[in-house]
Amino acid sequence: MLDTTGRGVAQSPSAASQRDMRRHNLAAVLRTVAAHGPLSRAAVADHTGLTRAAVSSLVDQLRADGLVAEVGRAPSGRVGRPGTALAVNERGPAGLGLEIGVSHLGACVVDLRGEVRVWLHRDTGNRGRDAAEVLAELSALAGRAIDRAGAEGLRPVAAVLSVPGVVGADPGVLEHAPNLGWRQVAVAGAVPSRGVPLRAENEANLGALAEVWTGSPGPDVLHVSAEAGIGAALVIGGRLFRGARGFAGELGHVPVHPSGPPCGCGARGCLERYAGLEAVRTRAGLAPDAADGDVVAALAARAREGDARTRGALGRAATALGTALTGAVNLMDPATVVLGGAYAELAPWLLPGMRRELAARVTVRPWRDGQLTVSVLGRRGPLLGAALSTVRRIVEDPVAAAPEGGWAGLRG
Amino acid sequence: MLDTTGRGVAQSPSAASQRDMRRHNLAAVLRTVAAHGPLSRAAVADHTGLTRAAVSSLVDQLRADGLVAEVGRAPSGRVGRPGTALAVNERGPAGLGLEIGVSHLGACVVDLRGEVRVWLHRDTGNRGRDAAEVLAELSALAGRAIDRAGAEGLRPVAAVLSVPGVVGADPGVLEHAPNLGWRQVAVAGAVPSRGVPLRAENEANLGALAEVWTGSPGPDVLHVSAEAGIGAALVIGGRLFRGARGFAGELGHVPVHPSGPPCGCGARGCLERYAGLEAVRTRAGLAPDAADGDVVAALAARAREGDARTRGALGRAATALGTALTGAVNLMDPATVVLGGAYAELAPWLLPGMRRELAARVTVRPWRDGQLTVSVLGRRGPLLGAALSTVRRIVEDPVAAAPEGGWAGLRG
Repeated sequence: MLDTTGRGVAQSPSAASQRDMRRHNLAAVLRTVAAHGPLSRAAVADHTGLTRAAVSSLVDQLRADGLVAEVGRAPSGRVGRPGTALAVNERGPAGLGLEIGVSHLGACVVDLRGEVRVWLHRDTGNRGRDAAEVLAELSALAGRAIDRAGAEGLRPVAAVLSVPGVVGADPGVLEHAPNLGWRQVAVAGAVPSRGVPLRAENEANLGALAEVWTGSPGPDVLHVSAEAGIGAALVIGGRLFRGARGFAGELGHVPVHPSGPPCGCGARGCLERYAGLEAVRTRAGLAPDAADGDVVAALAARAREGDARTRGALGRAATALGTALTGAVNLMDPATVVLGGAYAELAPWLLPGMRRELAARVTVRPWRDGQLTVSVLGRRGPLLGAALSTVRRIVEDPVAAAPEGGWAGLRG
Repeated sequence: MLDTTGRGVAQSPSAASQRDMRRHNLAAVLRTVAAHGPLSRAAVADHTGLTRAAVSSLVDQLRADGLVAEVGRAPSGRVGRPGTALAVNERGPAGLGLEIGVSHLGACVVDLRGEVRVWLHRDTGNRGRDAAEVLAELSALAGRAIDRAGAEGLRPVAAVLSVPGVVGADPGVLEHAPNLGWRQVAVAGAVPSRGVPLRAENEANLGALAEVWTGSPGPDVLHVSAEAGIGAALVIGGRLFRGARGFAGELGHVPVHPSGPPCGCGARGCLERYAGLEAVRTRAGLAPDAADGDVVAALAARAREGDARTRGALGRAATALGTALTGAVNLMDPATVVLGGAYAELAPWLLPGMRRELAARVTVRPWRDGQLTVSVLGRRGPLLGAALSTVRRIVEDPVAAAPEGGWAGLRG
């Protein structure tokens, strides 16, 4: 699942950079084991270009830190006795993902392999609700997730909170979440998850990263999703494009019809007025509490049954999405556009109109239908991305990602 | 003018990286002299953190390569005899910029200081003209520029050609220039400028880079310009954002009114139909050959005189620009938007409407009027950017930028 690989750096006698080199090599060994394990020490040496002696010493440290474990014997493909196989630890360090949605809360723990080990979801209407109350509820959910993970020997070392809004320079503060009605909410301190440090991140960004990390759209993706609002996130070369102040990707308020109906943001004719879930629900004539409040499931069910109003509302959304994405494709040149979040479930009724619109409008360079694909994660993306962020960070640089007190302190 | 600075790397005994380190330190010394010269050797040592002995050796090489020259004596601020002052060479290696516009050709030579030493401009209608004919004419102009530069002791080492169209993976090929009516034109081989290697680059990209290199908008800029069409280029951290395939920044074909008038690209209601120079000229009731074909100057003159049709056309362009830029600002989050190219000359009649539109539509985050500024270079940007590209490359890494046969070969 974790597919970043990298060759090690050969040891050199230069004294000054010894520590940096060991750090680099620890990461190379951990990445290799994560991507290709179970592997023998000899195979790790082959993959990284490091000597067997160096690999042995690095593996000893990674085992002491609880990041790598022996999982029995594996054939080495060499003459002599089979080596012991190494894999990333299925117990020990883990990532905690948390999520505040407009109509739910979530908590998730993934292990170092990237496997989901705990997944908690709680339906609850958060729109306009007091932030402190919601955060207390989330905190309780986080506690339950940590407990369950602990029972399996997993210890979350950092938490990432997916939020339906803007996170600025301070990753501990949710600056503005229009669909919750929140402004300037300090979330980092308000979710005291047993000392696990927390940072917030926009849900659209996390959904996009999760897709790139676990799916197969390639490393250059514009991910478009509907959750509370409409979000977009551009990933180039596997890295999130954040813009100058970290606010990039606000697709929901791109003007589609400049003289269109007023939007909650204060402007007119924004994409959200045509393709936001609330706009589609209203136009489809669906009550807010249909299908126990799961508007997405209700829309999909009605569209499947052939309901004309629902299909009409989704068709109108598709055209508007295609128009707005024409602008995004012209400006940002993504290799692939991925339809994610709730849109993934509605894709059968969105794709035809979107493809028609994109083919008609993206003309300076030829547009290929295959450039628009559907997310494999759908609404699970942001929470999964939140939990995976920590695991990715550990595997990329275990020394930098170590918790306060070091990895050894975590085990004690 | 060249303000990139960087400290040197202290010498270490590691044998393997000696060559890399010398290369890095050569660049550090050259950058320092370019940014702060004239400087004594002692001052260069202070700036870079390198020893005086190392600086002496590096300066010897840079002088032998013709990149740095002694320019007389300068007070060193130290006890003892004044040191000899060093500056980047005003003769020797230089950058050649070439430009194909819809109604002109250009050639320009800048020295290592970034100063313009040759500037040739030739009005000529290139729309629909045979590419080979235009390239032959450009070749002659390039030859004249090289001759004039040579007379001042300057030797262009590389050429960058500004084109009003799309350059893809192969920098020697102009893939598509709709306003010239050209497709798949191999430009690199067709402009044989006495062995000076040539690559093509989109004019909007070069205009944006020139602005960031010579102006003061900061390193995070969305540069919007009208030349043949309408181009945009995003610079983040001083680097061009190119997208996945190098096609980013196609602002001219962002839909403004999805059901609007048909555009030459095949779509409807593109920004170019409202804010392109051709659209503005037509709506202003101006003949194509007004002001000797300089539509921009003619529009500016009429607007200055208070002509209602011209002001109306520019006001309509301003509103459309504001709408399209709302999308770009929401998606890409630039710190500053710079109005460049021909728009700079028309800014007095564009800014009010653009600012009104942006303030009304960019609402999720507050929009400040100061975020929209006007280019200092205007229509000179792309050609200047083309010539400066080479000089920037030399100063950033003189070893990598050396011509075939090395710097010494250039002098012979």
